[in-house]
Amino acid sequence: MMNESELMAYFEERRSQVDRALDTLLANDGADPLRLREAMRYAVLEGGKRMRPLLTIAACEAAGGDAAMAMPAACAVELVHAYSLVHDDLPAMDDDDERRGRPTVHVAFGQAAAVLTGDALLTLAFGAFAGAKGGRGRPFEAMLELATRAGIEGMVGGQAIDLEAGQDIRELERLEHLHALKTGGLYQASGAMGALLAGADDALVERLRRYGLAFGIAFQHADDVLDDDQPALRKAALVRVEELVRECLGLVDGLGAAAEPLRGIARWVSDRAERAMAGEIED
Amino acid sequence: MMNESELMAYFEERRSQVDRALDTLLANDGADPLRLREAMRYAVLEGGKRMRPLLTIAACEAAGGDAAMAMPAACAVELVHAYSLVHDDLPAMDDDDERRGRPTVHVAFGQAAAVLTGDALLTLAFGAFAGAKGGRGRPFEAMLELATRAGIEGMVGGQAIDLEAGQDIRELERLEHLHALKTGGLYQASGAMGALLAGADDALVERLRRYGLAFGIAFQHADDVLDDDQPALRKAALVRVEELVRECLGLVDGLGAAAEPLRGIARWVSDRAERAMAGEIED
Repeated sequence: MMNESELMAYFEERRSQVDRALDTLLANDGADPLRLREAMRYAVLEGGKRMRPLLTIAACEAAGGDAAMAMPAACAVELVHAYSLVHDDLPAMDDDDERRGRPTVHVAFGQAAAVLTGDALLTLAFGAFAGAKGGRGRPFEAMLELATRAGIEGMVGGQAIDLEAGQDIRELERLEHLHALKTGGLYQASGAMGALLAGADDALVERLRRYGLAFGIAFQHADDVLDDDQPALRKAALVRVEELVRECLGLVDGLGAAAEPLRGIARWVSDRAERAMAGEIED
Repeated sequence: MMNESELMAYFEERRSQVDRALDTLLANDGADPLRLREAMRYAVLEGGKRMRPLLTIAACEAAGGDAAMAMPAACAVELVHAYSLVHDDLPAMDDDDERRGRPTVHVAFGQAAAVLTGDALLTLAFGAFAGAKGGRGRPFEAMLELATRAGIEGMVGGQAIDLEAGQDIRELERLEHLHALKTGGLYQASGAMGALLAGADDALVERLRRYGLAFGIAFQHADDVLDDDQPALRKAALVRVEELVRECLGLVDGLGAAAEPLRGIARWVSDRAERAMAGEIED
């Protein structure tokens, strides 16, 4: 079993590999349109925990692949995540002026540029994937997984349901379905893509897709433990996080040492929620 | 050589194949989010000449392939075109209320829905491509071609340059470069993708990419012949159309009967411009 410092070292190494790959994809050679190239870098490179790329790579490794095989998909899922934040922040959408302590893209670069920045990032996501020319494994299915979980049947669909329903969603079941689409979609894709690019069979792809969903929701709930004002709700969120983390650990049972990063990342979410509950960390 | 009625019958058949394929991709099963599904159909299915899909299919046939091999790419390029219109029409962009005689998507469905509709169509474009699972030919390179010509190095880049430059572009060379990016990009992709999906070699891919660019600019100039108020400018546009159509015909020289649709479609643009000049057709 990886100890905590080994796990943190693993995360740091993978994260810097992802950041280097993203930096290369978004290289700004000074050609027109210069401002849009700047806006794309601004939206992606400064900040972000890279949880979806980490999960993509760790899932690929757990299925017998390696980081290099997973890297195009890892970059693609982060670019999709980044574009969705740029468009979500627009005045016509959530109308947010700040993100990660900085002005949002439309505040810094203008609304038209923000629309185009999102469009360019989403297009680049698939370009990054296609540019890797397939490699081994099941690359077309991996790309289809990303398109499905990111589009009308996934993230964008969840956002539209949220928009259409407004404040009207009261049934817990519909609300959880909505969150599974909106935030779970890209995590599902990360788990499944990692497995597909390692050439895993359908059963393992499905296990790691479910791992991704459970992890994504646990990660979300861990934030609720930090953010909620009422102790009873914080406690309920912590219970749910621990349930989901157990589900994650069960899903990678039997995958041996290659799945250690997936186990570690799940335990890290649970530890984080517990420390938040104990008041040891703040948001 | 195909006569005009054979050519028109060919176009009609291919166009209805494309429309059926798009209708299937955009099937609305009544599931949430219902309004967004309606908006996607509204943006794609009602109207549009389908010139980019036609070119994709005809290029594939000219390179020894068939319509079925080209269909995922043909749908993908039309979905990319459709998304770009939805986002271009937004108040923050060109602020257009009408397109093809109907309210634009943001007028009919709201601005937030229009942003999401464009995002969902762009995502579906790559999903449609990936969902075909490659088939024969060089599918990854075809997908990369689409991502490149649609993104920061192509269509979106052209729009951003236009935006950044405002009314300041006076040099003809920069203006032509801009048009080649903004409107030529997807036509280039259509020609190249058709060839790549037929498994053509690099030289033929490049010829059909150049055919696409020349055709796209000719098609654009043919509209100028219809629209311009000054006879001298109409005449200049006609001369340029005929030059570009000759270039198109030269590029498919030696490809035999399989390239008849590409020859026919180029001659059709030239005929259209000539009839417009003679005042025989109106916009």
